[in-house]
Amino acid sequence: MSVKKIAVLTSGGDAPGMNACIRAVYLAARHEGIEVIGYQHGYNGLLKQDYVEFTHKDIRNLIQRGGTVLFSARCEKFRKEEHRQKAADHLSELGVDGLIVIGGDGSFKGAELLQQLWDKPVIGVPGTIDNDIAGTDYTIGYHTAIQTAVESIDKVRDTADAFERVFIVEVMGREAGFIALNSAIAAGADHVVLPETFESAGDEIVKILDKLDQRRKNHANSSHIVVITENLWPGGLDILRDSLQTETGLETRVLTIGHVQRGGSPVWQDRILASKLGAYAVEMVVNDERGLMAGIRHRYPEAVPLENSREDLKPLNHYSISMLDKMTLLD
Amino acid sequence: MSVKKIAVLTSGGDAPGMNACIRAVYLAARHEGIEVIGYQHGYNGLLKQDYVEFTHKDIRNLIQRGGTVLFSARCEKFRKEEHRQKAADHLSELGVDGLIVIGGDGSFKGAELLQQLWDKPVIGVPGTIDNDIAGTDYTIGYHTAIQTAVESIDKVRDTADAFERVFIVEVMGREAGFIALNSAIAAGADHVVLPETFESAGDEIVKILDKLDQRRKNHANSSHIVVITENLWPGGLDILRDSLQTETGLETRVLTIGHVQRGGSPVWQDRILASKLGAYAVEMVVNDERGLMAGIRHRYPEAVPLENSREDLKPLNHYSISMLDKMTLLD
Amino acid sequence: MSVKKIAVLTSGGDAPGMNACIRAVYLAARHEGIEVIGYQHGYNGLLKQDYVEFTHKDIRNLIQRGGTVLFSARCEKFRKEEHRQKAADHLSELGVDGLIVIGGDGSFKGAELLQQLWDKPVIGVPGTIDNDIAGTDYTIGYHTAIQTAVESIDKVRDTADAFERVFIVEVMGREAGFIALNSAIAAGADHVVLPETFESAGDEIVKILDKLDQRRKNHANSSHIVVITENLWPGGLDILRDSLQTETGLETRVLTIGHVQRGGSPVWQDRILASKLGAYAVEMVVNDERGLMAGIRHRYPEAVPLENSREDLKPLNHYSISMLDKMTLLD
Amino acid sequence: MSVKKIAVLTSGGDAPGMNACIRAVYLAARHEGIEVIGYQHGYNGLLKQDYVEFTHKDIRNLIQRGGTVLFSARCEKFRKEEHRQKAADHLSELGVDGLIVIGGDGSFKGAELLQQLWDKPVIGVPGTIDNDIAGTDYTIGYHTAIQTAVESIDKVRDTADAFERVFIVEVMGREAGFIALNSAIAAGADHVVLPETFESAGDEIVKILDKLDQRRKNHANSSHIVVITENLWPGGLDILRDSLQTETGLETRVLTIGHVQRGGSPVWQDRILASKLGAYAVEMVVNDERGLMAGIRHRYPEAVPLENSREDLKPLNHYSISMLDKMTLLD
Repeated sequence: MSVKKIAVLTSGGDAPGMNACIRAVYLAARHEGIEVIGYQHGYNGLLKQDYVEFTHKDIRNLIQRGGTVLFSARCEKFRKEEHRQKAADHLSELGVDGLIVIGGDGSFKGAELLQQLWDKPVIGVPGTIDNDIAGTDYTIGYHTAIQTAVESIDKVRDTADAFERVFIVEVMGREAGFIALNSAIAAGADHVVLPETFESAGDEIVKILDKLDQRRKNHANSSHIVVITENLWPGGLDILRDSLQTETGLETRVLTIGHVQRGGSPVWQDRILASKLGAYAVEMVVNDERGLMAGIRHRYPEAVPLENSREDLKPLNHYSISMLDKMTLLD
Repeated sequence: MSVKKIAVLTSGGDAPGMNACIRAVYLAARHEGIEVIGYQHGYNGLLKQDYVEFTHKDIRNLIQRGGTVLFSARCEKFRKEEHRQKAADHLSELGVDGLIVIGGDGSFKGAELLQQLWDKPVIGVPGTIDNDIAGTDYTIGYHTAIQTAVESIDKVRDTADAFERVFIVEVMGREAGFIALNSAIAAGADHVVLPETFESAGDEIVKILDKLDQRRKNHANSSHIVVITENLWPGGLDILRDSLQTETGLETRVLTIGHVQRGGSPVWQDRILASKLGAYAVEMVVNDERGLMAGIRHRYPEAVPLENSREDLKPLNHYSISMLDKMTLLD
Repeated sequence: MSVKKIAVLTSGGDAPGMNACIRAVYLAARHEGIEVIGYQHGYNGLLKQDYVEFTHKDIRNLIQRGGTVLFSARCEKFRKEEHRQKAADHLSELGVDGLIVIGGDGSFKGAELLQQLWDKPVIGVPGTIDNDIAGTDYTIGYHTAIQTAVESIDKVRDTADAFERVFIVEVMGREAGFIALNSAIAAGADHVVLPETFESAGDEIVKILDKLDQRRKNHANSSHIVVITENLWPGGLDILRDSLQTETGLETRVLTIGHVQRGGSPVWQDRILASKLGAYAVEMVVNDERGLMAGIRHRYPEAVPLENSREDLKPLNHYSISMLDKMTLLD
Repeated sequence: MSVKKIAVLTSGGDAPGMNACIRAVYLAARHEGIEVIGYQHGYNGLLKQDYVEFTHKDIRNLIQRGGTVLFSARCEKFRKEEHRQKAADHLSELGVDGLIVIGGDGSFKGAELLQQLWDKPVIGVPGTIDNDIAGTDYTIGYHTAIQTAVESIDKVRDTADAFERVFIVEVMGREAGFIALNSAIAAGADHVVLPETFESAGDEIVKILDKLDQRRKNHANSSHIVVITENLWPGGLDILRDSLQTETGLETRVLTIGHVQRGGSPVWQDRILASKLGAYAVEMVVNDERGLMAGIRHRYPEAVPLENSREDLKPLNHYSISMLDKMTLLD
């Protein structure tokens, strides 16, 4: 097969580095003399034949920009086979020789199903801040999201210290604790609430109070930071705040870091990860590999079956967890 | 009067640059051979005779640090004269020749009342991110708070653009729109809701929808950013969000920037402002000036009666307001 | 006169905020129904009739971007009247009703001379990091350049402290000390060498050694930072370094901050300044005002004759200078 | 052996995250009831019995700070056995049960030799921005140094683009190309000059000109960034600059990023790496392991013989190198 045209799209939650990946797809493809088009608004563009033809100008100075120039979106219609068939037809009509989908697990499910209907390579590239994709050490955007969270917690600590307050900081992560765990360690937090170890609100409060209590025994003046993964606390963080405030007698505040974690110029690791995976995805299309994800393992790209990407939840680093338990005890 | 010892404290909401101001007080005082002590936890330290004696080591590398090494706090007790009298006695017992209070309008009220009971200079230095102190062009922390807000909005815009969403961004400011207005212009927001012009939730929604509508007529793809001052929306921002989402049909999200605005390394303007005002406050003590604030006017420090600091609300820049109206119309 | 088309260009050294100013010109003009074109590469574009017609898309998300989308350049040819006459003819041919030149004093000289040959408004907007334009409190890019310098010095201080070294930090400013003075205060430097007070290398070395000596008497462990304006030291900074190293016995290093000061996302003050001046320049064209600069004074824009912009050197803030002398003595 | 007291020091070039490592050593040790002292100024402190006894207060808010609170230095004397013997005696006199040395390969040589003279564990922790230590995936400070370099290049690109210039950017790395290679990819540079592949100045110039030439064929307007590792160019970068300027006809500038790469608040990866390695080093002392380095491999700490740390040069990522060759060709 001689590849002449590759299509790329970004789908699902956006992540810093998606643009760097689009650029890498373009550059690696052009190096092989391959043309590149970009579908807009995720799978929606595929359904509406809504695309741009990339030129050099489009990807200049793109590596450092947050967001995605192709826009992203969820696409309910893509759950139905008739729409996916239409997408396959659209790709064929344009003479596309391979499709690269940058997104998370929902997007990969769509990619797998589309692959069944289309006789050319569909390749996934893991792009999500949550790092909740198996088969790859990291996902694009993950490194930046943690850096953003840590810089925010650093700032909040200034004011927490000044007033000797407790701050509950909510970070993203969907059902995975990667962002929370690493933010907590890097920011020197007192405690972290992770989806992987969360049992009940009651148990968790006991643990938090125990941690704060131990720390207060060791420090006359001190602030406390508790990092918590989103969507975890039943009834919302205001309930947790009230409870901590009552029990500790310390003024307690909530900081929801929110969507800033999805934006911003990608840190260098996300730029390089995105570049490697984008370039590798093009190689995979050229080699006519199908239904695969371009993953990273020990800093080298490798091909992983798309269905393995969601196999089971990737485990957290257990040394990090045990270290956090030990180290904050007396900080 | 020969001044031998100056006391300094930070009170009320903390602000980036308070440490730079403490450092300036110390350095300017030492240059005159004056000793400096720092009361901790605002006026509480004054009531408990809880203070530190500063040495060179304490203020090294302090200019760039957020928070306040003297801690801050509100102090209910200070509303009663008996406690203020105690504070005056404590100052006299230690042989203090002047007190410098870095804080906002609440703290200045305390300073004025203390001045009535104590026969040495009490000088205020405006330290609050809200810029809601009259008699001074700027307050310490204000420049940094806006920069923090703008950087957050820049990041949120990435994700807002990718999904063509509406974002409602809540910034601080108490009852003043300085942070909101400047953040909105600098971030290229579509609309800003200011306490100075807020009439009713209903009116404001009409204005917002009108703005969004005008912009959507001009752009096929677009995100929208609405900046709103804290504590303004009756019933909370979730109500506004639901309302905008229903009316525009666009996914609408809320970002509360929160306490990160109070922290972080001060930007250069806050460092220089803090240094000038701290140095000038020492001059004022040395000259036995009383009941005054060290304010800044056209980049030079000047003395302002403490009671003028809250005279009337400082006006917003009307060119900025009119410009925002005109310019976002078609952005 | 009914204005239908405005042209804008950026000339001379680039500065963060030039893009924000281009955007403001576009938005303010569009609000009046005026079309906007942008000449590329400074006056060169005017000579070659090399321009772009701006649309909404071009200025989206432009406010936060460093550099200039119109490119900049110096233009030797523009010193000759025949070329300026050609430029005037080109403007007339395209039906341009006013020209806005964003740049520094060299660019303004060109604007003045062009105004003599062309019968429509030529308006200057001060865009240079050096702040060396009279008639305006600030120039676009100035605030960002200092912030960049200060962040670099903050980082260098970490390593300076760790090794107890002397660092000589060279900042930009051409023949003005604005960047150097403010960087030095905000970074807590020991000494600053300013063009406004520079007499001879020998005198300056005596002053520096005196400062370092005083500081070393007061601190057992300490690093030293000396900030110096570019192009000031005869023979280069290596000579100064060797001299300080020999005299103090301390390892001495040079850091030239360089062109990073010209780039980066503009801080909020430069974005707002650029927006105000751009919008005001459009007002001036609409009002058929000629040969003027849009300056800022006490936060409001005002018109200043172009020839006044270079009148005499704007003075440095003398309180800042005296404060730096006093405060670093014992830091 | 029951460990009661651990000593820690920082030696050689400083690196962001050294403070985070000191903090981790302290916290992990205190968790086991072990006391921690810190020798100052590297091995010099060991020779002079110059140390501090750490308390909780010393390590509060330390994780995010650049530099090293223990100061660093090179120590010529330590090359002589008599001085190392004195160091061993000093450790024994104080009842120290283990020494942790945070530094680079020179410092590790000292640690190995000291281990031969002292009958308690000496453990190395790799702390250097250069990443030139074998037996560990990464070294403390490396991640931050690249981020700093990339942010500077991003800024320079703004001005490079505005003027269509060539910029030669010199980054650190001693004799290793890790910083240069990763900075170049992440900043989208045109070309990188690496010590590992450097043959001669003449060959390298041919390669650079070839790259620039290829890029200029593809872009009408463009800037060029060439990243080069320090100490590589015979005669200095000015010679390279002149040569490129003459050959390309494009204005060519040099940016030496310099010591800012050694400073600044560590990015999250360096904070976590430092925390893991510090905690693990304490475990190693407790387990009476000797002459080892605490390295990181696939995100988990592991023990590596100190002599292996310098075995042979760690290879660069060859996928990165090949990708850079391909991708910039047409960027």
